[in-house]
Amino acid sequence: MAADIDRLVTKIARKVELKLLEELREVPCTAPAEHCSGEGLCAVRRPDDVARIRDVGAARVGASPGIGKVRQDLAQLIDHTLLKADATHDELARLCEEARAYGFASVCVNAANVAFCKRHLAGSGVMTVAVVGFPLGASPGSAKAFEAKEAVRAGADEIDMVINLGALKSRDYATVHQDIAKVVEAVKPRPVKVILETGLLDEEQKIVACALSKAAGAAFVKTSTGFGPGGATEADIALMRRMVGQDLGVKASGGVRTQEGAEAMVRAGANRIGASASVVIVTGAKPADGAAAKPGKY
Amino acid sequence: MAADIDRLVTKIARKVELKLLEELREVPCTAPAEHCSGEGLCAVRRPDDVARIRDVGAARVGASPGIGKVRQDLAQLIDHTLLKADATHDELARLCEEARAYGFASVCVNAANVAFCKRHLAGSGVMTVAVVGFPLGASPGSAKAFEAKEAVRAGADEIDMVINLGALKSRDYATVHQDIAKVVEAVKPRPVKVILETGLLDEEQKIVACALSKAAGAAFVKTSTGFGPGGATEADIALMRRMVGQDLGVKASGGVRTQEGAEAMVRAGANRIGASASVVIVTGAKPADGAAAKPGKY
Repeated sequence: MAADIDRLVTKIARKVELKLLEELREVPCTAPAEHCSGEGLCAVRRPDDVARIRDVGAARVGASPGIGKVRQDLAQLIDHTLLKADATHDELARLCEEARAYGFASVCVNAANVAFCKRHLAGSGVMTVAVVGFPLGASPGSAKAFEAKEAVRAGADEIDMVINLGALKSRDYATVHQDIAKVVEAVKPRPVKVILETGLLDEEQKIVACALSKAAGAAFVKTSTGFGPGGATEADIALMRRMVGQDLGVKASGGVRTQEGAEAMVRAGANRIGASASVVIVTGAKPADGAAAKPGKY
Repeated sequence: MAADIDRLVTKIARKVELKLLEELREVPCTAPAEHCSGEGLCAVRRPDDVARIRDVGAARVGASPGIGKVRQDLAQLIDHTLLKADATHDELARLCEEARAYGFASVCVNAANVAFCKRHLAGSGVMTVAVVGFPLGASPGSAKAFEAKEAVRAGADEIDMVINLGALKSRDYATVHQDIAKVVEAVKPRPVKVILETGLLDEEQKIVACALSKAAGAAFVKTSTGFGPGGATEADIALMRRMVGQDLGVKASGGVRTQEGAEAMVRAGANRIGASASVVIVTGAKPADGAAAKPGKY
């Protein structure tokens, strides 16, 4: 059964790749001329650009004293996340304090909140991650690129963008690719994660989305926004890892709320976890009441 | 009881207005120098800018033959809406065909889909409305303004933006005001509707949001994104109409799915309705299966 699925995936992937290569030849290159020696697609021409996976296990801060036993192997993989529409300054400040105390990889927030978090995290070694085109992915690529650039200007270290789902489902792959490539280009060399919203996609769409993300220079593929149907599953993580190989990262997000859940995602191939219940994940403790412990819903 | 609430609203509104005027004096004017003869806030200095309410009852197309009895008085008030993340070209085409056939005021779509709809609506008299910073309202004001400008470049006639809810709840009113003013300025003279996401707000926050929208030059206040908790209620529409008076429009959106529901909103003070079930509203008929009939959820 597993072997059957493997064969199917390989077959579809090959088919998609061939079709993609054909279609992508039509996509104009958006790289500035001075970085460019020829014609064609940057990510195809310079595969090194695509291989920017972060060694998320390296050089993270340790946990503060007095907060009990912390699973640092997990903490350093976690983007501590607060994405609800009405997150207040107080809630964001708390998010940052928790990230600092527990040694999370980053805080992941809406683009409008980057500057605030960056200030709160000064000197901590905790990154600030901004979501862009979030959560629908249905703003134009130019607008996503602008928003990403503004987020970087405000201090974002990484960008998590949502793929253009309507274009993907309409098989308008050139638009999907350009959308990602524009954001990648806008924030270079900062890593861009592409949120696929796997709960809305069928198997073939997931595979195509991974291939397009890789071709467009993404650093990670990521499962879910947390606002759509479903969330990260082990099967999706395994599929995504198989599609992007070791060149890109895979981030599990949406519905990861326990230590066991996070461990399962890592075993399946994730090397980053997006979570709101991050404190529960690394301590096993019940969280105090507070926004940071709620899932990233309204 | 009603008189008590009226008195309370008047009291809060006065308090808010005084506080606002004080705070807004600190907000720098963003209008280009050539349009500006003095100092201070444009919307305060030039109150005419704020009075751009559209006469939505005027000059709409009639319904096509063969589609049965249509409540045209309601049809011409409806923004026919499809905002789910993965709306395909086929679903958008259908939305446009329905809008043309039934004489809806507009189609309301994500910014990435404006160009597609604009082409499909050519010559119909149906407007294209783009949502911006949608549905969380948590992208920076500069990014909302850029996205709005891109939408207008693609053909949008009106912009529905989401207010910065985090800033509103943090009582950072200057940020809320600037956020709206930037979008208004970016797309002038096209009308901007400000989505308050009333389901997330308490009474005072709703009142402040209306006052800030009016001061920043919005053309409409609008209840809900359809993605948040709750939707339009008669009480909220009445409150919003009382706050903005006759200078601005009031759009009821989120959960309006029947003729009776739409009529109740109009009686309460709405002069625009955002709906996905628009065909049901104007015909009373059961809609055929199709995306246009689903609410604007994922």
